[in-house]
Amino acid sequence: MDHLYEKTLRSETLYEGRIINLRVEDVELPNGKQSKRELIDHPGAVAVIAITPDNKILAVRQYRKALGKSIVEIPAGKLEIGEEPEITAIRELEEETGYSCQSLTEVISFYTSPGFANELVHLYVAEGLVKKGEQSADEDEFLDVLYLSLEELEEMVNTKEVHDAKTAYALLYLKMNQR
Amino acid sequence: MDHLYEKTLRSETLYEGRIINLRVEDVELPNGKQSKRELIDHPGAVAVIAITPDNKILAVRQYRKALGKSIVEIPAGKLEIGEEPEITAIRELEEETGYSCQSLTEVISFYTSPGFANELVHLYVAEGLVKKGEQSADEDEFLDVLYLSLEELEEMVNTKEVHDAKTAYALLYLKMNQR
Repeated sequence: MDHLYEKTLRSETLYEGRIINLRVEDVELPNGKQSKRELIDHPGAVAVIAITPDNKILAVRQYRKALGKSIVEIPAGKLEIGEEPEITAIRELEEETGYSCQSLTEVISFYTSPGFANELVHLYVAEGLVKKGEQSADEDEFLDVLYLSLEELEEMVNTKEVHDAKTAYALLYLKMNQR
Repeated sequence: MDHLYEKTLRSETLYEGRIINLRVEDVELPNGKQSKRELIDHPGAVAVIAITPDNKILAVRQYRKALGKSIVEIPAGKLEIGEEPEITAIRELEEETGYSCQSLTEVISFYTSPGFANELVHLYVAEGLVKKGEQSADEDEFLDVLYLSLEELEEMVNTKEVHDAKTAYALLYLKMNQR
């Protein structure tokens, strides 16, 4: 038994939404005392590091209501129920940028906010990019496609136009794996 | 005006918790249609890359109820209301590991899950570490302190014992800045 384990005494789902659910749980701590945990269930997501044949990094600018502003991120999207992350990655890349890819390699997966959410992001590198058509995002998704050099991506991190964990990770990954 | 802007038509706070709030908003999309956004308000957090005088990376193993398991992370914690992130970083490092530091340098800040949450993590490097005492975490926080080599941290990423965005970022940062 994990000596840090927290036993669930009571679990109540307070909200079941389109994307997230909110659960509040009473737990028994390792010392026998009780506490409350506020937990978000999320289906998980993918993100894709994709480099075009002319060596540009694909990125999208998107309005993020949670932040009240637009930021630039690598292509990404939520998993549909039961969907393999690789399938989501291929679909989201094509929907958001119009590019298909010939191969995908998982770089890493990580929980974004383990203190309160179970969202797991699967990060891929896509290779063999081919322009298939125009961007055709979800009906409630509006975005600009950007083609960035490594230097431009890094400058956007410095100016906080890029300001999210997965894209910041992607920049370091690309800097470490420059060809 | 940002051409990707989503106008708030209606905002309802469905839950106000100890750490997070849940808001559901009806928005007007750039094409005039409507959609719904599920949003989590979070006070923000800090995380600290801290290397001891004998060149070990400080890490903590902690049970994460959202994941239903324990994982290993760099020291981190939530901002108190109105608190400067540097102050939080110094406090959390000392509470979680027993170490104080002589200087802090911000490495980066990033939103962990911009699709649904406004949690911003401020990541620091702490230098001049001095052992002040024993770990004395919050009353509902139980954790093991670990002293890791870079190789051990990397192996834990491979085995998914380390499995969160900030610690994965920290590993790449440390690999790029090896002394």
